[in-house]
Order: sequence, then C-alpha cells, then structure tokens
Amino acid sequence: MAYSEYKMWLQSENAAVPKVDSIIEERILNHWDNIDGSVERGYSGKSLFFKDGNICYDKNRIRDYARYLSSIGINRVCCNNVNVTERSARMIADDLIDDVAALAGIFREFGIRFIIAVDFTSPRLLGGLTTYDPYDEHVIKWWKAAAETVYKHIPDLAGFLVKADSEFRDGPAALGRTQADGANVIANALKKHGGKVYWRCFVYNCVQDWRDTKTDRPKAAYDHFYPLDGSFADNVILQIKHGPSDFQVREPNSPLLGAMEHTSQALEFQVTQEYTGQQVDLYATAVQWQEILDAPVSDSQSMRDLMGNKVKAIVAVANTGLDANWTGHTLAQANLYAFGRMASDPALTAREVLGEWVKLTFGSNPAVYEPVLDMMLRSREVYEMYTSHLGLGWMVNINHHYGPSPEGYEFMKWGTYHRANHEAIGVDRTEAGTGYTAQYHPHLNALYSNIETCPEELLLYFHRLPYSFKLKSGKTVLQHFYDSHFEAVEHVEEFISTWDSLRPHLPECVFSSVADRLLRQLSNAKEWRDVVNTYFYRLTGISDGQGRKIYD
Amino acid sequence: MAYSEYKMWLQSENAAVPKVDSIIEERILNHWDNIDGSVERGYSGKSLFFKDGNICYDKNRIRDYARYLSSIGINRVCCNNVNVTERSARMIADDLIDDVAALAGIFREFGIRFIIAVDFTSPRLLGGLTTYDPYDEHVIKWWKAAAETVYKHIPDLAGFLVKADSEFRDGPAALGRTQADGANVIANALKKHGGKVYWRCFVYNCVQDWRDTKTDRPKAAYDHFYPLDGSFADNVILQIKHGPSDFQVREPNSPLLGAMEHTSQALEFQVTQEYTGQQVDLYATAVQWQEILDAPVSDSQSMRDLMGNKVKAIVAVANTGLDANWTGHTLAQANLYAFGRMASDPALTAREVLGEWVKLTFGSNPAVYEPVLDMMLRSREVYEMYTSHLGLGWMVNINHHYGPSPEGYEFMKWGTYHRANHEAIGVDRTEAGTGYTAQYHPHLNALYSNIETCPEELLLYFHRLPYSFKLKSGKTVLQHFYDSHFEAVEHVEEFISTWDSLRPHLPECVFSSVADRLLRQLSNAKEWRDVVNTYFYRLTGISDGQGRKIYD
Repeated sequence: MAYSEYKMWLQSENAAVPKVDSIIEERILNHWDNIDGSVERGYSGKSLFFKDGNICYDKNRIRDYARYLSSIGINRVCCNNVNVTERSARMIADDLIDDVAALAGIFREFGIRFIIAVDFTSPRLLGGLTTYDPYDEHVIKWWKAAAETVYKHIPDLAGFLVKADSEFRDGPAALGRTQADGANVIANALKKHGGKVYWRCFVYNCVQDWRDTKTDRPKAAYDHFYPLDGSFADNVILQIKHGPSDFQVREPNSPLLGAMEHTSQALEFQVTQEYTGQQVDLYATAVQWQEILDAPVSDSQSMRDLMGNKVKAIVAVANTGLDANWTGHTLAQANLYAFGRMASDPALTAREVLGEWVKLTFGSNPAVYEPVLDMMLRSREVYEMYTSHLGLGWMVNINHHYGPSPEGYEFMKWGTYHRANHEAIGVDRTEAGTGYTAQYHPHLNALYSNIETCPEELLLYFHRLPYSFKLKSGKTVLQHFYDSHFEAVEHVEEFISTWDSLRPHLPECVFSSVADRLLRQLSNAKEWRDVVNTYFYRLTGISDGQGRKIYD
Repeated sequence: MAYSEYKMWLQSENAAVPKVDSIIEERILNHWDNIDGSVERGYSGKSLFFKDGNICYDKNRIRDYARYLSSIGINRVCCNNVNVTERSARMIADDLIDDVAALAGIFREFGIRFIIAVDFTSPRLLGGLTTYDPYDEHVIKWWKAAAETVYKHIPDLAGFLVKADSEFRDGPAALGRTQADGANVIANALKKHGGKVYWRCFVYNCVQDWRDTKTDRPKAAYDHFYPLDGSFADNVILQIKHGPSDFQVREPNSPLLGAMEHTSQALEFQVTQEYTGQQVDLYATAVQWQEILDAPVSDSQSMRDLMGNKVKAIVAVANTGLDANWTGHTLAQANLYAFGRMASDPALTAREVLGEWVKLTFGSNPAVYEPVLDMMLRSREVYEMYTSHLGLGWMVNINHHYGPSPEGYEFMKWGTYHRANHEAIGVDRTEAGTGYTAQYHPHLNALYSNIETCPEELLLYFHRLPYSFKLKSGKTVLQHFYDSHFEAVEHVEEFISTWDSLRPHLPECVFSSVADRLLRQLSNAKEWRDVVNTYFYRLTGISDGQGRKIYD
C-alpha cells in the first residue's frame, strides 16, 4: 500500500502483526543494498539501510518497514548485498557489528531474524590469513571466532548468506574444494549458535566463449550441486533461483529444485524488476510466481508440492528503497506484498493476493478495484509479449538490462545465446543438443524434449526452430513475433486509457505518478516492438503478414 | 622512445630543444585527463597531471615530458579533459589557478604555451549567475573578469578550449544562440590578452532515434558550422575532427575542413587509440594521418595543401599516462612522436617519421630497424582488416569501444548505423540518400557518389551495397569480409614471429611487454574474425568460398 495509507493503517486496529502459520518455515527477503548507499538492481532510490560506507537509516522508517514485512509474513531479512564489498564484509567485524546488531534489533521487535551476507574470503580479507581454504585449520578457527563475535551481538541471527564462485567472486572452487566444503566450514561454525548458511547456487561459467556450443549455462547449477547431495551440513540451505538462467521473464523451473534428497533448499524469486521492467513498466510478479508454483516437477508433483517439503525456505530479492512510495512504481508495492503472502501460503493465487493488495490500497469500490486488478493480472503477459518470446529471453541491453538489444549478449561471455540466423533461432537443449533436459525428471524430460508437448511459451528455451515453424495457432514463429509486438503496444495503450479513467477515484499524486510511468512504458513497448520486428525483418526479409509498419 | 632511453638521450648533446620552423603555427596536444586522476579513453595508466580532484604531478617527469613534446614540435598543451567536470571547471578560478600556473610554468620553460579547457556554463557554474547566455551583459562581464584573473597568473596562456552543445554538455544552442555567439563571448574576453578560443565542432544529435533515416550524423558538423562562416571572431579557431564520424579506423575527411573562407580551423587527430586498438593492438596512426593528408579536398588540392593555409592549427588527443613507458604499448610511443613531427612538417611521410622513431628508439641495426618499421607500417591495414571494412566502422562494443559487436550501436541513440540486413549493408549518403556527399567540393561529391570512382576502402561509408556486389578484385563484398578477417589473423601471427625473432636484439623488458600485447592482439583479432564472420554468415547463409571455419 502507499506509504501514507500504510501509516494510517498502522494507526488502526488492524495493525496488530499477524501471526503467520506457514508450511514454509523461512520466508526471507534479500536486499542487494550496497554499503555506499546504492542498490544493485534497485529502482526505488537509495538504500534504506546504508550510506557512504556505514549503516545509516531512519529508525522510524525501518520500524515501519519491519512491521510491514512482518505483517505480510516475512520472517528473515538480509540487508546487505550478496555481492559483498570489502567494506560490507566488515559487517561481521568489530567496527560495524554494533551498528548491525542495532539494526537487527529493530527487525527483532517484529519477529524477523537477521541474516548477514558474508564474503567467503573473509578469513583472508578480514582475518589477515594467507588463505581462505575451508580445510585450513586457521580458517576453520577463524570462522568459529567470527561466529562467536557475531552471536554475542545478535544471538538470534538466522545465519550467513554466501555468493561464492560466482561472477568473479572467489569461492572454494578456486582452491580445488567443493561447494559443500565451502558451505560446511561456515555452517560448522554457526551450528552451535543455531545459525544456518544460505549458500547461493548461482554458479556458472561467466567467461564462456560464445564459440563453445557444448557449455550450456542453464545446466550449471545442477551440474555443480546435484552430485554433492548428502555432503552438505544439516544447517546449509542451498538457495536456488527459480529458473536455470537468471530471473528472465519466462524460464522453465530449475531442475535442481527438488532434485536433492538430502539437502535443504530455498526457492529464490526476484521482487525487484531487473529484467521485468525496472519498476517503470507494470509487471505483477505474482502472476509469474503462480505459474512457477503450478508447473510440474515430475509426473505427479508440482513445484507447489515441494514447498515446505524439500524446499524449506523461500527467498526474494527486495524492490524497496528510499523513494517516498518505497518501490518507485506505486503498483510495484503489490509485488512485495504478494511475495510475503505467497511465501506464507503458496496455495494463494495471484488473483487473490493482488486482489487483497488492491483493496488494501485503493479500497473495495469495484469501479477502481476491478480495472486495477485486471491491469495487474494482464501485465505479465503484456510485458512478455513485447520483450521475450516463446522463452527466448536475453534480448536486453547489456549491463543495465532495460530496453531491447537483440544481439546485445550474443557474442559476450555470459553464456546467454539465441544464435539466431536468417532462418532459425534458439538452442536445442534436448538430449540431441546440449542435453539440458536430461537434468529433469524423466516425465519432464520427455515433455520438454518433444516439440509437440513442450509448452509453447517455452518452445525457444528448449528448441531451435525455423521461423517458418507453425505454432498451434497456425501462425509461424515469425508472424507470432510480429503480432505479439504490435499487439503488446495496443495493450499498453489500453492500460493508459484504463488508468486515465480512474483519475477521479485516486489521489492525484498516485494517479499522476503511475500515469507518468505508463507513458514511459508505452515508449519502451514501442521501442521493443520496432527494434525486435526490425531485427527479424532484416534477418529474414519476410514482411509482416498484415502489412503493418516495420522499419527497414 | 622508451623512457629509460629517453633519459639517456636527454643527457646527450642531441638534447637541445630543436627550434621547429613549421608552416603550422599551432601544434597542440589535448589531454583528456580528468581531475580525479582518471583519463578518458586513456590506456596508459592514470593522469600525469591530476589526482583526487587536484593538480598533482611529479615535477621531474613533467619537465621530461614538456622537453620531449617540445623536441618533437608540440607548442601548445591542454592538460584537462574537454569534458570539463564541475571541479576541473575551477582551473580558471581562484582555488586552482595558482597550481595551474605552476604547471603551465614548466611547459613554458620549453616554449610550450598552455591551454585550459573550460565549461561554457562557467558564468553560472562558477560565477553564480542565473544564466550563461552569451548576450547577457553579466555573462560578458564575467568572462572578461575570468580572463583578467587567468592572464594575471599565466600571461602567455594560448587560450581556452571549449566543448559545448555536445554529448549532453550545455552550450549556446540550449539558449537559442549560435555556435558563433558562444565562441565569440569568450573570444572577446581573451582578445586583449592575446588569447584564442579553440571551439570544438563535435556537435551532433546524440539522442537520435534509429528509426529516423533522415538525420545523418556525418552531416552534423558542416550543417552546424558552415552557415556561420564570417561570424566568428578572429581569435576563434574551430577544432574539427579529421573525419565526420569519430576517429574511426577509416572515414573520409570532414567536408568542413577547408570549407570556410573566413574562419580559422584546426585539424584534430587522435593519438590515443580509442577505436584503433587501445594500445593493446599495434596501430601506427601516422599511416592513417598520411592518408588523410594525401586525400583530396577539391579537384586541385589535398588536405595537405590546406595546412598552414585555411587550417592554421593541428591538434591531437594524447596517449600518455603514468605508465613507466608513457604509452602502455611501447610501440605506441611512435604515435606521439609521429604526431609532433607530422604537425611540424605535414610533408613528412609515415615511413619517414616512423623510421626516425625506430632508429631513435632501437638504433640503426637493419636487423631490428627494418622488421620493426615494416610491422608498424603494415599495422594500420591489418587492424582495419579485422575490424572495420570498406569504411563501415562502429561494429565495436558499446561504451569502451574495444572488441567486436556488430549490432552494438545499431539501435542506440548515437546516430551510428550500418542497417545491415540479409542482403545488403551500409547507408546511401549520396544525394539520392541522405545527401551527405553534397557537403563536399563538387569534384569530391561526384567522386564519392559514383560507385565506380568511390575509393573502395570507403565504399560502405557512402553507399549501401548488396553482399553480392563485386569489388575490383572480382570478389563479392561478403567474400572480401571473410577473406580480410581470415588473413588479418595470419598477419598478426606474422607480427608475433617477427617480434620473437628480434628478442636477441632487444632489452628483455621491452621485448616481453610488446610480446605480451601482441598475444592479446592475436586473441582480439581472432575474436573479431569469428564474430564478424559469424554475424554475416548467420545473416546471409552464405559460406566462405574457401571453406574455412565460420562458427554457426
């Protein structure tokens, strides 16, 4: 809800913090906030927690925030970025721990336990040791001592979050040790204090040669972690992104989720809209999450069935910052709300949780409630129509990830290639290709491998197809691209009319701030339409079947 | 020459500073050094002049540098970046002027006059005025007062350098004034002190919509400045890049150079290798400069004929920094040397000046001299073979400009498009197209407009051609692309063998540092070969005529 309204709500009798009785024990919010005050992939202003290398915040606002998070079911937070800097690594050291403990204390008032992101090389970085080898006895001792210090200050700390061997961050692999060796040395130090290690599985070759067609990035997490099942300490939780790529608009679920019998797992979502519109374009993440939870993981189970079972925790990257409305786009508040609610009860539908949010925020007047809810429910499909197609993904501008660049990542080192030529596009990930599908349960392997049974929205994630391939609609892939892009712009124009019609019912500041973002979304949708259509038109020489304008 | 050798040379009797009697009065070196110590487009370490927001240097080293510049004919330097920051704008203000004057004093010892890059909005930025409108009397007064202050400290200051209305920097156009209005208000203030304004002509629309095919960036400088001929004060010099794009490997000469009858002009080169290998890849800029000077500007004159005539000054962007060898790549020292020598005497050939440098640096032993000179003379052609083709340019990675990205700039706002599709590539810049060629002398307009007479190396600068177009060699454009890229890698391999064979004759540190860069160049040349070949193969579906490996 809007901050002003939330303040009012806090003063009302509904404001008692609800006691959430969830099947998922840990419902975690990760912030990618840097200690200099910036926020990685943040689109809502500066950090709520940090400034200029120190912990620095408005106590009242953090209290409001903690209370709000608690009210929607969040019970763990990590405030510092998983990409730990030399300075933020010191959050577990003497110079910062008092301030960290004070911040943790605010969240504690609302039943939320703190997590700290740490640097795997800390024994060397902070401790002055010559190594961070998890087999080294000084390293083992160092982690134990660090845990003692931290738990003296924060006795209920939930644990440490670690991104290691990932995107140029050092980890155990650099020393010839396994991911389990790495996670366990920290887990063993935390165990007596009741702490856990949240170990991210975003490990892949980020210096791939595009000429190498054997290496297939989506295979990486499973290849690295599945063989280690049984080697992780009990208090290690593997934190696995929902899809095998990286929070794209459309991906299959990660085959690693649920695959390991003897290892605790956490499902990771992204509330912040890195690839999904950056809080300029409307995108209700709940719709995607419901699809993810609905999707099968075997012949008899869906992802939802794993929740509270093999998947004991759920995590998301936050979308909040110092903006007055918390989330940049006012309607993006619904994404944070929905995460808390769906983490607490994965059986809730997107319609239910978004409906709750719209009512809490704008009231129950159906003249407002229905059109706003309808826009939000459609927003994910519309965004997908003008950006990604049939599971393709990655056609974004490099680095910042907003706006179209069809070949932006095509020759880079990140392992994200569509390999489009003048007649076909996509990567064959079946056993005839990179073999990625073999990582799934046999039922899913068969489902995805067969072009007839592969869900159409994922066709280009699993298969290489000629543009002339006929979809179930009877359209070719190419005509589907064209149609989606033309129609998406029309949908955004409808959003704008809808929103305009609500003006009399809305506070002017809320109306105009959303109206402004919708106009920016329209410009973005047109840019995507024209760039992507032109790209495929130049490549194929085939015009739009309906004769609409495609630039040369 | 290498720093150590130069030090020796300084102690020798040859070290008397030569008195250069040139037809070109001003031979200027621009540094793009930021006051924080970084260097824009710098590939040789941090700034020689600045650190952490202040003027900060090793006096002995600057004295060596000034002496060296003077010895090769340079008689003007500007040390701060034309992209002036809020802090470096203060170089003309009380807080920094003493330090600036001290630095200028070192150059003065060697007959080099100082230039300061200033911010056009200084009256507002530094003076606290509400405007920087050149018609405003307070603004006029402010510039006069600023000039008084500066000339009190640096009585022989050559003048101010200004980049205005360019790449998001404010200028007179923002206030509805002309470029002449902008330049003149400063020039009038400098006149009584004998100072000049060096006014850059790099003015173009840097927020172009790629869908707009009417706007053609190469037309911009001429369109903006030519109509103003006669309106500039006598002490304004228009600083014009050699080509109409931006220091690409291959461009035609700017039609603005020599076009204005009543305006002093400066020809601007780039010694620093922004688009030409970044001091990793070997690239002897002198070869390109000779071509530029050789090129016709009318039916009876070449660019060389303009030198000392309509073009009274010559400028280049420096390639130096705090690296021990000054220029990152040891052989890139030759580019600075060559600039000074050719600025002093534009009739010198690349062979002559590079030959001088090789002898001064490595001695006259023909076993060293000849192969090194040969490598350097070939280096420009080889680099062009694996990067740009037939004048195409711009297929570089965005922002940093190293390495290939065929569509990197294709949908961006910088006005740099090749518009390649499955059958053709390039932009028609004749009068049937964007009309750019009409900016040239009629003789050149005719020459460039006709595919038969257009120099082949510029074909794709002026024309859109099908890949099947036959070049004079009988090869198609596409096969020419393929061949160039395959052969370029072989040439780089030859450079490596040549260099390896020189090992016994060279100091080990010089040998190994160049050898290391040649290996990096080889990897870069292979990356270019494979990315560009694959790009065109994917687009056209046409294989290499010789069956060599092109990745799918």
